[in-house]
Amino acid sequence: MSALARSVLVTGSNRGIGLELVRQLAASPQPPQHIFATCRDPEGPRGKALRELAAQHPSIKLVQLDTVNLASIRGAVRAVESHLKDQGLNLLINNAGVSSHATLRSLDLQEMLSIFATNAVGPIQVAKEFLPLLDKAAKGMGKEGLSCSRAAVINVSTKLGSIGLCLGVLEAPMYPYRASKAAQNMVTRCMAAELRDQGILCTAIHPGWVKTDMGTEKAPLTVEQSVRGILSVLAGLSQETSGAFLDWEGNSLPW
Amino acid sequence: MSALARSVLVTGSNRGIGLELVRQLAASPQPPQHIFATCRDPEGPRGKALRELAAQHPSIKLVQLDTVNLASIRGAVRAVESHLKDQGLNLLINNAGVSSHATLRSLDLQEMLSIFATNAVGPIQVAKEFLPLLDKAAKGMGKEGLSCSRAAVINVSTKLGSIGLCLGVLEAPMYPYRASKAAQNMVTRCMAAELRDQGILCTAIHPGWVKTDMGTEKAPLTVEQSVRGILSVLAGLSQETSGAFLDWEGNSLPW
Repeated sequence: MSALARSVLVTGSNRGIGLELVRQLAASPQPPQHIFATCRDPEGPRGKALRELAAQHPSIKLVQLDTVNLASIRGAVRAVESHLKDQGLNLLINNAGVSSHATLRSLDLQEMLSIFATNAVGPIQVAKEFLPLLDKAAKGMGKEGLSCSRAAVINVSTKLGSIGLCLGVLEAPMYPYRASKAAQNMVTRCMAAELRDQGILCTAIHPGWVKTDMGTEKAPLTVEQSVRGILSVLAGLSQETSGAFLDWEGNSLPW
Repeated sequence: MSALARSVLVTGSNRGIGLELVRQLAASPQPPQHIFATCRDPEGPRGKALRELAAQHPSIKLVQLDTVNLASIRGAVRAVESHLKDQGLNLLINNAGVSSHATLRSLDLQEMLSIFATNAVGPIQVAKEFLPLLDKAAKGMGKEGLSCSRAAVINVSTKLGSIGLCLGVLEAPMYPYRASKAAQNMVTRCMAAELRDQGILCTAIHPGWVKTDMGTEKAPLTVEQSVRGILSVLAGLSQETSGAFLDWEGNSLPW
């Protein structure tokens, strides 16, 4: 099996699904040449597990990246560029996100805006700033069609972002989180339309309900199982699944 | 034909669809007893057409309401309450909204947040603050089931907010607008779930592509046609269509 991609960048990679994505990518039989593991504070106490992992794998490069801070994103682009030299970036995984349980009665404007900034605007801003590197990868690989090994943006989404499932199926009153993730799904789909002719794939992935800080211990799925599924789904993405909303097993979800 | 509702509040009613909703409601054979026509500046130059309309119809009450300003919303609730006396508010139409054509390359964080605040957070904040009055209407009418004549929140949405139609069908690159409207659709659906047992209906309505300042002169539909359709759809809403996404002719749209 060939590598999923020559270069991969993962946001929010200091814990949970992001950390496990970096771990499994680095430990795969054919690891990417460059794994850019980014988070807000890789040198701080919350970056400890990631630093320990990076110490074992020379393919992992730690990069500071706060997805709602444009200066930080641009600094990360420069750092990534200096590692890639004249190559492009193949695979951007927008994993960073925050949750919120506010109901109609308890929510407030500032919280809504903050959650929206991280979950919906962050992925766009990161994609926008890395677009020249993604574009370079799409043009430079001598590949046709769309795939994660050529050039792709993967947005980690959630079943809770499905508007269709919101009524009668999955009625958790989490307005800020759900609204921000529906917005993020729209962004994924707009990007899939806009970037298709440039050879860049965009897909939304629901990782399942996973035992992480966000998913809590009640979740049925371990982070290892979820990430193994996600990486297998990513390897199979193509023109047909760009713009899709898939779960960690590859099943299509309703918008 | 009985009145659509005893009391109706319309946000963004100084022009376009909002103004026409107020006009047709006031001119109907059985007009609502109270039509609260709200906008940011009813006394300013942009409120002129609305003031002229109100001068002809005693049922129309002008109320200042900026949907992203909590103090303004609370002031509007007090004004509405003083008119309604011990009655509740039957029908809240969240019509205020803004458009934006930014592409992936041209958008910026502040614009995304501002559009999101108006289109997705505004309708929630208004609904949240008017909830006691909607609740009073739901309890006080001696009616069963869900309907606009009992208690309802109608969110004016758009086909451009359909994630399903975004790829291959309606590919306008309007990230901030589309993402904010997908988020608003999620909000409609969460509210439909949360408020169902309180007797409050929530539905998203696409007014069609209408000749307004927002829709431009290229639009195929006049504002009169659109609003006539919307009011007819509203009159027929029930338990089955709470949480739905319907166009001005009553057709269901994909999320």
